[in-house]
Amino acid sequence: MYEAFWREVGDRAATVIPAWQAMSYSSDAAALCWFLEPGFEREARRLHRVVGNAEDDGYHFVVGTGATQLYQAAMYALSSPSTGDKPPVPVVSPAPYYSSYPPQTDLQLSGYYRWAGDATTFAAGDDDECIELVCSPNNPDGAVRDAVMTSAGAMPIHDLVYYWPQYTPITRRAAHDIMLFTVSKITGHAGTRLGWALVKDREVARKMVYFIDRSTIGVSKDSQLRATKILGVVSDAYEISQASDGDSNAVPRLFDFARRRMEERWRALRAAVASSGAFSLPDETTGYCSFNKRTVTDCPAFAWLRCEKEGVEDCAELLAGHRIVARGGEQFGGDARCVRINMLDRDRVFNMLVQRLSSIN
Amino acid sequence: MYEAFWREVGDRAATVIPAWQAMSYSSDAAALCWFLEPGFEREARRLHRVVGNAEDDGYHFVVGTGATQLYQAAMYALSSPSTGDKPPVPVVSPAPYYSSYPPQTDLQLSGYYRWAGDATTFAAGDDDECIELVCSPNNPDGAVRDAVMTSAGAMPIHDLVYYWPQYTPITRRAAHDIMLFTVSKITGHAGTRLGWALVKDREVARKMVYFIDRSTIGVSKDSQLRATKILGVVSDAYEISQASDGDSNAVPRLFDFARRRMEERWRALRAAVASSGAFSLPDETTGYCSFNKRTVTDCPAFAWLRCEKEGVEDCAELLAGHRIVARGGEQFGGDARCVRINMLDRDRVFNMLVQRLSSIN
Repeated sequence: MYEAFWREVGDRAATVIPAWQAMSYSSDAAALCWFLEPGFEREARRLHRVVGNAEDDGYHFVVGTGATQLYQAAMYALSSPSTGDKPPVPVVSPAPYYSSYPPQTDLQLSGYYRWAGDATTFAAGDDDECIELVCSPNNPDGAVRDAVMTSAGAMPIHDLVYYWPQYTPITRRAAHDIMLFTVSKITGHAGTRLGWALVKDREVARKMVYFIDRSTIGVSKDSQLRATKILGVVSDAYEISQASDGDSNAVPRLFDFARRRMEERWRALRAAVASSGAFSLPDETTGYCSFNKRTVTDCPAFAWLRCEKEGVEDCAELLAGHRIVARGGEQFGGDARCVRINMLDRDRVFNMLVQRLSSIN
Repeated sequence: MYEAFWREVGDRAATVIPAWQAMSYSSDAAALCWFLEPGFEREARRLHRVVGNAEDDGYHFVVGTGATQLYQAAMYALSSPSTGDKPPVPVVSPAPYYSSYPPQTDLQLSGYYRWAGDATTFAAGDDDECIELVCSPNNPDGAVRDAVMTSAGAMPIHDLVYYWPQYTPITRRAAHDIMLFTVSKITGHAGTRLGWALVKDREVARKMVYFIDRSTIGVSKDSQLRATKILGVVSDAYEISQASDGDSNAVPRLFDFARRRMEERWRALRAAVASSGAFSLPDETTGYCSFNKRTVTDCPAFAWLRCEKEGVEDCAELLAGHRIVARGGEQFGGDARCVRINMLDRDRVFNMLVQRLSSIN
């Protein structure tokens, strides 16, 4: 979806890296996050200020190979090894949760932490340690979430990768202990594998850096250089070219483009669902967005589609029969009558989906 | 050390990445290693053919975030989860071994594998599974190694990141089951965090891909694009510009440059050690190099320096007193009278080291 935008921006956002640049493992050997390119940190913090979606003052900044590596680093930083008496720290999230959480958490069968399923049915003692993954807006259903585990030993990790104005109204500067973001969901550059964490506690940040050092000896400098350029172009369009509105040389504005496209797609999807009659979607919500300076609808990156036909227990199977590929609800710890539909695919794929969906009855 | 070379090559090796390029997670959704850029695979395989250091025909190609991620992926692929009866698979390497092996192996206290120390003192039953990390030429001492574990359950991983003609004579095309390489040790681009594995068994390669998918959802496309360009320039200098020898526009030849520099540095280091009298180094070895087409000395990327002064038990401490930073031998499972010295540092740092070393007596 974002490719069309970047083609329009053109050469202004291209990255040039001379062969002799950024050859070393380290960017600033004396820094807490020694493999972080200072320019990347600067542009990521600047973007938070432009958008107003997260507090960054007083936060340590940790770069990672996507939010995926960062959330593993955060779980590692929050837990301690299991011993004879003490099992690994349980990791929970309310269903439906991101389907990759369980296999990513248990990939190594770590002695530090272990997937423990749906937070809403998890029974923890008051002082028991547990890690809650709080994804907001939530993958797969787009719900705006707060932590549900409130015991003294609960440690939330806020996965805010979709908390950007194309997907949801920006209602406040988030200010949680650990907040994860990724370039992928902002600009569409998934292949760059680059994310960052804003971390309040210095010791937690230090342990996350240690984890990333040991698992990949830092993070690609090339990705950091490219993201520096790209995030810079995004912010420039809002900060610098305001004076030149109407100028045909003005850089297009990413969040305006993406919100327009997401709203179009959600309108098309809701129309198809209405025309079919066999499905339902989460209710549309609205809110005042401090970034857009108007009330906007939520436009999640995924649609959590529920089959309402009597007798249908497996929505993914039903859709497969109509040549629609969607991930089944039980993979998200949820109901098999639901599926997750990707709202960020290429135009051709998305249009075909809408067309096929509307003809099911 | 390599930066000077790449400055000389100049713009010919620069990478340009338009913002709309390589945005997706996947490069070829149908391929075994679906996040591998085909151009990168092509250039890496081409380089093996130019140099003649590894067989690549019939091998699957897996890209990773440096050899570090690949060796974890390989351990994961070779082992199965521990159960009540069965502990995690032991991982061994003959001392002195790369000091990062133990903490990287045990980072997550994985249920699949666990560091078990020096291979030469490890007692395994005939059928017991165990993984041996075979680093050749070896970090830290430069020794050319073969696997020492010969039991039926022994599974070697060949870490060949230094098996390039600047460091050691190329004596054969290596053809082991799992062979790891990294751009970092070939061209100096450590910050690119990019390595690859040549893997004989399809199922092992598939599991490695799964591991990399779950831990970082693939590998930076930007790093792959940059490495494609850089490895291409390295091979071109040997394959294309042979006709234009003496042409001032000819691209400089990386391995010639690096071997010259390594030989100079080793000469300087051996002279300093001789002038000091307080130390010894591993004996120089020579061999016919099929790539250089002449007999060459070994020029390891690290020097394994031993203090021969009576009464000195800790060489790192002695050197620290002379303002020389070196990693102590016990970190490599070896003797504290030894230290590892980096032979790839910047000229200024290396020259200072040699000067300070020669004055110790």
